[in-house]
Amino acid sequence: MRNHIKSKYELLKQQIYIIIYGSNTFWGKLFDLALLVIILFSVTLITLESIPRFDHTYHHFFLISEWVITIFFTLEYLLRIICHKKPLSYIFSFYGIVDLLSIMPMFMSFVFPTSKMLVVFRSLRLLRLFSILDMMPIIGQQYHLKLALKASRNKVLVFVYFIIVISIVLGTLMYLVEGPEHGFLDIPTSIYWCIVTMTTVGYGDLAPGTPLGQAISSLIMIMGYGIIAVPTGIVTSEYANARKQNPELEDHFSCPRCTKFIYDEDSNYCSNCGEKLIK
Amino acid sequence: MRNHIKSKYELLKQQIYIIIYGSNTFWGKLFDLALLVIILFSVTLITLESIPRFDHTYHHFFLISEWVITIFFTLEYLLRIICHKKPLSYIFSFYGIVDLLSIMPMFMSFVFPTSKMLVVFRSLRLLRLFSILDMMPIIGQQYHLKLALKASRNKVLVFVYFIIVISIVLGTLMYLVEGPEHGFLDIPTSIYWCIVTMTTVGYGDLAPGTPLGQAISSLIMIMGYGIIAVPTGIVTSEYANARKQNPELEDHFSCPRCTKFIYDEDSNYCSNCGEKLIK
Amino acid sequence: MRNHIKSKYELLKQQIYIIIYGSNTFWGKLFDLALLVIILFSVTLITLESIPRFDHTYHHFFLISEWVITIFFTLEYLLRIICHKKPLSYIFSFYGIVDLLSIMPMFMSFVFPTSKMLVVFRSLRLLRLFSILDMMPIIGQQYHLKLALKASRNKVLVFVYFIIVISIVLGTLMYLVEGPEHGFLDIPTSIYWCIVTMTTVGYGDLAPGTPLGQAISSLIMIMGYGIIAVPTGIVTSEYANARKQNPELEDHFSCPRCTKFIYDEDSNYCSNCGEKLIK
Amino acid sequence: MRNHIKSKYELLKQQIYIIIYGSNTFWGKLFDLALLVIILFSVTLITLESIPRFDHTYHHFFLISEWVITIFFTLEYLLRIICHKKPLSYIFSFYGIVDLLSIMPMFMSFVFPTSKMLVVFRSLRLLRLFSILDMMPIIGQQYHLKLALKASRNKVLVFVYFIIVISIVLGTLMYLVEGPEHGFLDIPTSIYWCIVTMTTVGYGDLAPGTPLGQAISSLIMIMGYGIIAVPTGIVTSEYANARKQNPELEDHFSCPRCTKFIYDEDSNYCSNCGEKLIK
Repeated sequence: MRNHIKSKYELLKQQIYIIIYGSNTFWGKLFDLALLVIILFSVTLITLESIPRFDHTYHHFFLISEWVITIFFTLEYLLRIICHKKPLSYIFSFYGIVDLLSIMPMFMSFVFPTSKMLVVFRSLRLLRLFSILDMMPIIGQQYHLKLALKASRNKVLVFVYFIIVISIVLGTLMYLVEGPEHGFLDIPTSIYWCIVTMTTVGYGDLAPGTPLGQAISSLIMIMGYGIIAVPTGIVTSEYANARKQNPELEDHFSCPRCTKFIYDEDSNYCSNCGEKLIK
Repeated sequence: MRNHIKSKYELLKQQIYIIIYGSNTFWGKLFDLALLVIILFSVTLITLESIPRFDHTYHHFFLISEWVITIFFTLEYLLRIICHKKPLSYIFSFYGIVDLLSIMPMFMSFVFPTSKMLVVFRSLRLLRLFSILDMMPIIGQQYHLKLALKASRNKVLVFVYFIIVISIVLGTLMYLVEGPEHGFLDIPTSIYWCIVTMTTVGYGDLAPGTPLGQAISSLIMIMGYGIIAVPTGIVTSEYANARKQNPELEDHFSCPRCTKFIYDEDSNYCSNCGEKLIK
Repeated sequence: MRNHIKSKYELLKQQIYIIIYGSNTFWGKLFDLALLVIILFSVTLITLESIPRFDHTYHHFFLISEWVITIFFTLEYLLRIICHKKPLSYIFSFYGIVDLLSIMPMFMSFVFPTSKMLVVFRSLRLLRLFSILDMMPIIGQQYHLKLALKASRNKVLVFVYFIIVISIVLGTLMYLVEGPEHGFLDIPTSIYWCIVTMTTVGYGDLAPGTPLGQAISSLIMIMGYGIIAVPTGIVTSEYANARKQNPELEDHFSCPRCTKFIYDEDSNYCSNCGEKLIK
Repeated sequence: MRNHIKSKYELLKQQIYIIIYGSNTFWGKLFDLALLVIILFSVTLITLESIPRFDHTYHHFFLISEWVITIFFTLEYLLRIICHKKPLSYIFSFYGIVDLLSIMPMFMSFVFPTSKMLVVFRSLRLLRLFSILDMMPIIGQQYHLKLALKASRNKVLVFVYFIIVISIVLGTLMYLVEGPEHGFLDIPTSIYWCIVTMTTVGYGDLAPGTPLGQAISSLIMIMGYGIIAVPTGIVTSEYANARKQNPELEDHFSCPRCTKFIYDEDSNYCSNCGEKLIK
C-alpha cells in the first residue's frame, strides 16, 4: 500500500517534471508560454512602478499584483526543486539561481525597501526562451553559434584585458593633458572617458578642450575604430570553423527529454530514450 | 464582335502590364524611371513643406503638387490592380500595401489633418528600385546577399532578444545606482539609456554621474563592443556560405517576365517563356 | 641638326618623365619624397592659417610660403603635362584633376578671397603615396583589397540606398512623434537625426524626449546595430574570395613603368618592357 | 676556489633567472602572480591619489606606498639586468623599456613634481600577463591571432592613412560650410570633428548647425559606417587564413624556456632544451 502511494507520488512528480521542464507536450508548451507571459507582465509592472505618475495612481494594484506573482513563482520554484531528480544541480544551475533571484527581492523588501527594484532580475528568466527554442528544429543551427562563442570567449577576454590596460595608460595621459579644468577631474574619470571613446560610444559628457587633447583623442578614436575589427574577426572565423567542422548540426535538433542530437529529421521517436518527437 | 473587343481589351491589359510591371522594354524602362523621379519629387515636397519658412511662401504650390501626384498615384494603383493577373496577390504583396499607403494619407487628411505627413511613407516606393536592379546582370550577385540575410535572420533576431533582456536588467541596475537625480528618471528611461550605450550610439543626453555608475557603464560599453562582433560574424559566415553553395548565381540574372534564372549569359531569349532579353 | 635637337629634347622629356612619374630611380624616389614633404608642409600651413592667433602673427610668412609652393606646384603640373605621352589622359585622370585643384584655389583667390581655403584639397595629393606604395613588394597584397573593394562597391551602394530610404521613413515618423518642441524642427532635421542614430554616431544635439520617441529610437538603434553587419560581411567575404581566386598576387608586385605584374620575385628586369627593377 | 665562487654565483643567477623570467616553476609562478598584484595595487594607488578627496586624507600613505613599490621595482629591474644572459637585449626590449618607464617617473618627480602621474605607465607592465598566458596550452591559439594581426598591420595602416587624408579634406569643407559661429573654430578643430564623426564616436561637443552642414555630415557618417567594414574584413580574412595555413598551432604551446613550439601535447620534456614541461 505504501509502495503504491509512493509510486503514485513518483508518477505525479514525473508528470509535473514533464510539464515544468519539458516543452514538447501540450501542457508543457502551455506552461512555458504562460510563464513567459507572466514574467513579461511582472517586468512591465515593476518598470511602470518606477514612474512616479503611475506609482501614485496604481500603487495598490502594483503591490498586490507583484505579491501574487511572487507567490506563484515561489510555488513554481519549490515544485522545480521537488520534482527534479537532482534538486541540488538545479538549485546551483544558472536558471536555478535566476529563479531564486526573481523571488528573493520581494521577501527582502520587508527589511530593505529599495531592494524591491531588484525584482527586475526576473527578466533574466526571459532567457529561458532559449532553452525552449533549442528544442525546435528551426533553431537547431544555434549550436554552431554556441560552439563559436565558446571557442571565441578566451580570445575575446584577452582582448578586453588589452583594451582595459591601454585605457588606463591613455586615460592618465589625457588627465595630464586636459586636467580638471576641462572636466577630466581625476584619473578614474579619465579612464572612463577613454573607454567611452575607444568603444566609439562617445557620450560627450566629457570632451577634450585643448588642441593637444583633441589630437590624442583622434588617435585613440582611430585606434578604437581599427581595434573593433579584432573581436569581429575572431567570432566570424570561429563561427565559420564551427560550421565547417560540424556540418551534421545543420538543420538538426535535440531530443527535448534527453538532449541527444537527432540527426535524422524524419525520426518520430528519440533513438536514445524513445521520447515521442513533436515537429 | 464581342470577343474581338474583349481580346483587344485583354491585349491592352497585357501591354499596360508589360509597361507598368516590366522594365525590359523601352516604355517599361521610361515608366519606371518617371515613377522614381515623381516619387523623389513628392518626397522632397513633403520634406520641404515641414519647414515653416518654405511652407509659408509656397503653401499653395505644395498643396496643388501633392494632389496632382496623389491623383497620378491613385490612377497607377488602379491600373496595377486591373491589369494584374491575380489582383489580390498584388494588393496584399509588400509593394501593393506600400502603394496603397502612399495615397491613403492624402485622402485621410480631410478627416485627420496631421495624417498628411504620412505621405512620406511613399518614399518606401523608392525600394521598388531594387526590383528593377534585380533584372540587370550587374546586380545578379544580390541573390547571394538575399540568401545570406534570409539565413541570418533567425539568428540575429535571437541575438536582438538577448540584447533587450540584458538591457532591461542592466538598465534597472543603473536606475538603482544613479537614480533620478542624475537623469535616470525611471526604469524605462534607464533601459533606453542602456540600449543607447550597448549599441555604441551614446547620445549623451543621459550620462552616468557617479563613480560606480561610470564603472558599470564602462563594463556595459566593453560588452556592447564585444557583442557587435556576433551579428557581423553570422552575416559574414552566411554570406560566404551562400556564395560557396550557389556558385551558379554568380554573374547571372533572371528573366524580367517569369523571373527564371538565366544561367547562360549569351542567351537572347528566356528558355522558359521565350521573352526577348535586353542586356 | 634639327633632328638632333629634337631627339635631345625627347631624351630630356623621357628623363623628366622617369623622375616625376616613376619612383624606382634614386632621383625619382627623392622627387616623390620631396613632393610629399612639401604637400604636408603646405597642408599644415593652411591649417594653421585658419587659427586666428597664428594668422595674426605670421600672416606674411603664410602668404609668401603658399605662393612659393603654388608656383612650384604649377611648374610641376605643367611639366607633368609636357612630358606625358598622352597629356589629355593625365589631365582627366584622378590625379590630374587633384593636381589642378591643388593650384586653382590660390589663383581664384584674387577673385573670391574665401576660396583660398580650398587649397586644402591639395591634401588629396597625399593619396599619391598609394601609387608609390603599389610599386613596392611589401604592399603587393593591396591588390587583393582593391579587387575586394571593387567587387563590394555595387552591393554596398545598394545597401546605402536602402539605409537612406529607411532613414527618410523613420525620420518622418520621429518628426510626427517628437515634433518641433523637442528639437525635431522639420523633416530634413529628423532625417539627419535618423542617420546620426542608425550609423551609431549619436551626437546628442538632438535626442528623443518623449517615452514613445525613446522606444522608437531604441528600435532604430538596434536595427542600425544589426545592419552594420551587412557591409562588413560583404567586404570580408569578397576579400577572402579575391585572395582565394588570385593567389598569385600574394607577395608580388608590378613593374613601375608598364604596371605589368611581376610574378617572379627574383626578376631583375621587367619581362614586358625591360625596365630595371629596384627592390 | 675563485672558480667555485663564480660557479656558485652563476648558479644563483640562473636560479633567479628561472624565477623572474620563467613561469613554469612554483616560485616562478608565485613571483609572476605577486608582481601582477603589486602592479595592480600600485596603479590603483596612483589612480586614487588623483582624486583630491582621497589625496587629502591618505597623502602620507600614498607617498610611502609608492616609494616602497618603486624601490621594489628598481631592485627587480636591476636583478633582471644582472641575471639576463644578454642584458642589453633586455634593456632595449619592449618590456625592458616599460620596466624602466615604471620606475623613472618617481625619481624624476624630485625635479618635475607633475611627472609623478606618469607612474601610471607601469600599468603597461600588466601586459606581461600575455607572456605568462603564452606558456599555457589553453592560450596556444593566440598564435593565430598574432599571425593575423601581423599580416593585417600594413593594410590597416594604409587604411588609417586614407581615413586621415579624407578627414583633412572633409574637415576643411565643413569649416567652410559651418564656420566659427557654429563651433567649427578653425581647420584643426574641424578635422578633429571629422575624425569623431567618421569613427562613429560622435561626442556632440561640435555638431553641424546648418542644413548643408547636416547633409554633408550625413554623407560622412554613411561613408564612415561603410568604411568600418574594411579593417574588419582584412583582420577576419587574415585570421581565417592564419588558421588554415598553420593548423598545427591549434591547441599547442611553446616551451617556457626556449619558446620552441611543442607540437606533441603529451610531451613531458621540451625536445629542444630538455626543460621539464608543467601542464
